[in-house]
Amino acid sequence: MLGRGVGVEVLGRFARVDEVVSEVVKYLHLPPSCTLDLLHALGKVSSCTITCSKPIPPHLKATMDGVAVRSSDVAHASEVNPIYLKLRSNEVVHACELPNFELREGECVLIETGGYLPRGADAVVRLEDVEVADGTVAVYRSVPKYGNVSLVGEELSTGDTIVSVGDVIRPWHLAALSSQGLSSIEVYDLKCGVVITGDEFVRSLAIPYTMWLIVGWLRENWFTEVTTCVVPDDTSIIVSKVKEFISRDYSVVLIVGGTALGRKDYSVKAIKLLEPEYMVHGLAIRPGRTTCVSSVDGRLVIAMSGLPVAALAVLELILRSILIKWLGVRAPPRAVVRGKLVKKVAGVVGYRCFVRVIVRRISSEYFIEPIMVGGSGSLRSLVLGNGYLVVPEDVEGYDVGDVVEVTLYGHVEEGLPQVS
Amino acid sequence: MLGRGVGVEVLGRFARVDEVVSEVVKYLHLPPSCTLDLLHALGKVSSCTITCSKPIPPHLKATMDGVAVRSSDVAHASEVNPIYLKLRSNEVVHACELPNFELREGECVLIETGGYLPRGADAVVRLEDVEVADGTVAVYRSVPKYGNVSLVGEELSTGDTIVSVGDVIRPWHLAALSSQGLSSIEVYDLKCGVVITGDEFVRSLAIPYTMWLIVGWLRENWFTEVTTCVVPDDTSIIVSKVKEFISRDYSVVLIVGGTALGRKDYSVKAIKLLEPEYMVHGLAIRPGRTTCVSSVDGRLVIAMSGLPVAALAVLELILRSILIKWLGVRAPPRAVVRGKLVKKVAGVVGYRCFVRVIVRRISSEYFIEPIMVGGSGSLRSLVLGNGYLVVPEDVEGYDVGDVVEVTLYGHVEEGLPQVS
Repeated sequence: MLGRGVGVEVLGRFARVDEVVSEVVKYLHLPPSCTLDLLHALGKVSSCTITCSKPIPPHLKATMDGVAVRSSDVAHASEVNPIYLKLRSNEVVHACELPNFELREGECVLIETGGYLPRGADAVVRLEDVEVADGTVAVYRSVPKYGNVSLVGEELSTGDTIVSVGDVIRPWHLAALSSQGLSSIEVYDLKCGVVITGDEFVRSLAIPYTMWLIVGWLRENWFTEVTTCVVPDDTSIIVSKVKEFISRDYSVVLIVGGTALGRKDYSVKAIKLLEPEYMVHGLAIRPGRTTCVSSVDGRLVIAMSGLPVAALAVLELILRSILIKWLGVRAPPRAVVRGKLVKKVAGVVGYRCFVRVIVRRISSEYFIEPIMVGGSGSLRSLVLGNGYLVVPEDVEGYDVGDVVEVTLYGHVEEGLPQVS
Repeated sequence: MLGRGVGVEVLGRFARVDEVVSEVVKYLHLPPSCTLDLLHALGKVSSCTITCSKPIPPHLKATMDGVAVRSSDVAHASEVNPIYLKLRSNEVVHACELPNFELREGECVLIETGGYLPRGADAVVRLEDVEVADGTVAVYRSVPKYGNVSLVGEELSTGDTIVSVGDVIRPWHLAALSSQGLSSIEVYDLKCGVVITGDEFVRSLAIPYTMWLIVGWLRENWFTEVTTCVVPDDTSIIVSKVKEFISRDYSVVLIVGGTALGRKDYSVKAIKLLEPEYMVHGLAIRPGRTTCVSSVDGRLVIAMSGLPVAALAVLELILRSILIKWLGVRAPPRAVVRGKLVKKVAGVVGYRCFVRVIVRRISSEYFIEPIMVGGSGSLRSLVLGNGYLVVPEDVEGYDVGDVVEVTLYGHVEEGLPQVS
């Protein structure tokens, strides 16, 4: 059973994150697409490109209450020399109504803001500049062609791109899609299976709380479905769970826990048994260096630490980068600020380091306090912190006063940093 | 009906956004709270403060495979002078197991990474540094107190704040709540009723596409429930819809359309009939100056334009600011960059102007191109753009080359800006 010298398996060099990201995507198949109604498509990644086919507005449209005219008819109208036009109809053209007649020379029609101009008309004279009496309208002011009118396609023209492959669907996309009469859109059906490993969880000796961090993150980042399960430290059970997710068209499987270098790498052994096309165990990232990234049957299978900060580092620095490259996600940017360090940060040369920080602000200047660098207290560091700093592989660390870039994930308070 | 001179009602001065935000919140009641399970609480605003009551880990915990010892027993152990300890039990302490005995002097027990140390033990000697035979363990290396051990509360200590009132719930909050055995949390039950007005929509002459922008935005910003309805341009129907939402405990009602200054301000008339405690019609914001902000029965009722950009300006610059002040939302910051303008931007003195822009990037330098300032093409400007610029009330505008701050809402491409 346990015996001297079994604890450590020496891996080769730890692989650089950028290399792993670039390599693994070569083996991955694109996820299938699914059609989601607009509301559920919010925050998902479009798998299609949609261009405008119905211009908005579809016809010339009044932007003021008034009378629709042929501008040439009223070119010489003025306060002292009004031009008299014949009212073509007694009906007022209401918003989004299109009159079914053509306006001839010398004619006009009452129109409300938002009404479509009849054929022949090309401008609107404002209500303040006309007088209506007995089927005749006196126009006291000239109006240029397209005066007080929205042009066809002014909001959205035929051919305008509404959404491209890789766009993360946002509220304005929904509006533009809806304007075309669409009530749904094709997005990548990005399903993630989360396999939580650990006898202690199966036996209910502990709560697998890191699962919630992972599930929450996946929900915030483009996944259409997230399914979790808890399994014992048993390689064959892990293998069968991953196979089940793959057979159900899950494009990503995360195996949480069981990545230790050595005897207890159940998850890594499981991936080996799954005959991956690509597999790397041991990444040059801290925390998270026991991560295993693989492609199994064209699906992304990652074994990752069950410690909360290591898990977040893997999600932010590895999974997100893979998704962006794999699906071509045109991701809205994260909030990033530059500020001054109030404490030293030690990196580890050769490793990409994920450092939690507290950012505070004095007017527009930011001050950055790293939290317990390289230490523990990881869950606390996430709820107390509001950002993270990435120390690149070729940097030994940063000094007090160095200006660094931080990705913010929480509210920034005004005030002096607390240097302890 | 229509007649000369009815088109314009001159309002008094337009109210400054900051004043309106500060004033209206004085009249608003806090929304009720509701209990949501962790997954549904993601992205909502906490209405409670929760501190850690169960330290994580709850006991000293092994961080390596090895034997749990009293560190004083092995203080003099070395490769040449091993110390021999008695195995207290033949059982290995597995992850999250707590032995039910006290370790006495001269005793030790095998323990796995994650196992809890028995009472009496205060350190773990790594498996590589011991030899196990016949109920006796030879220890070849000393270990300091708490060596290879996680302290009680190292992840999360009793008294640590997990979530405060006003926090927007993020994935790490879910993990920390779950670690305490919680499966739900109280959040503000922020329900929004959206009343889309317009005969043209009731008659299906047009699609109320701005509704989707609004609904999507509300979903992205903390609301627990969004209910929409489409009503005709009829003040009494609008009044009854708002009353219905208020009676159903909706804290925010948005009336979309019918805010025009003049004859067609059905929505504004409806608010007047609702006897608001506070009401301002006409805000110094462009677009969006016909906005009406009010408090009715302590609920926030806003009448806003149905044009998509005006609607977004109201949501981003007015509603978001009110929510932050009203609920004390500690909002995670938006992505903001500073960059050089490649085209002039005209502001309107006295107004806060909401200008859509395209931001492009050359390595770490940002270039900002305003889109059709003051012009139309509004829906296109949202889907083509990726950010917005706010020109403050006291600024006339910006010149080419000026450095300005832009809030990003979409992906930023590498490349030269296209100056047209």
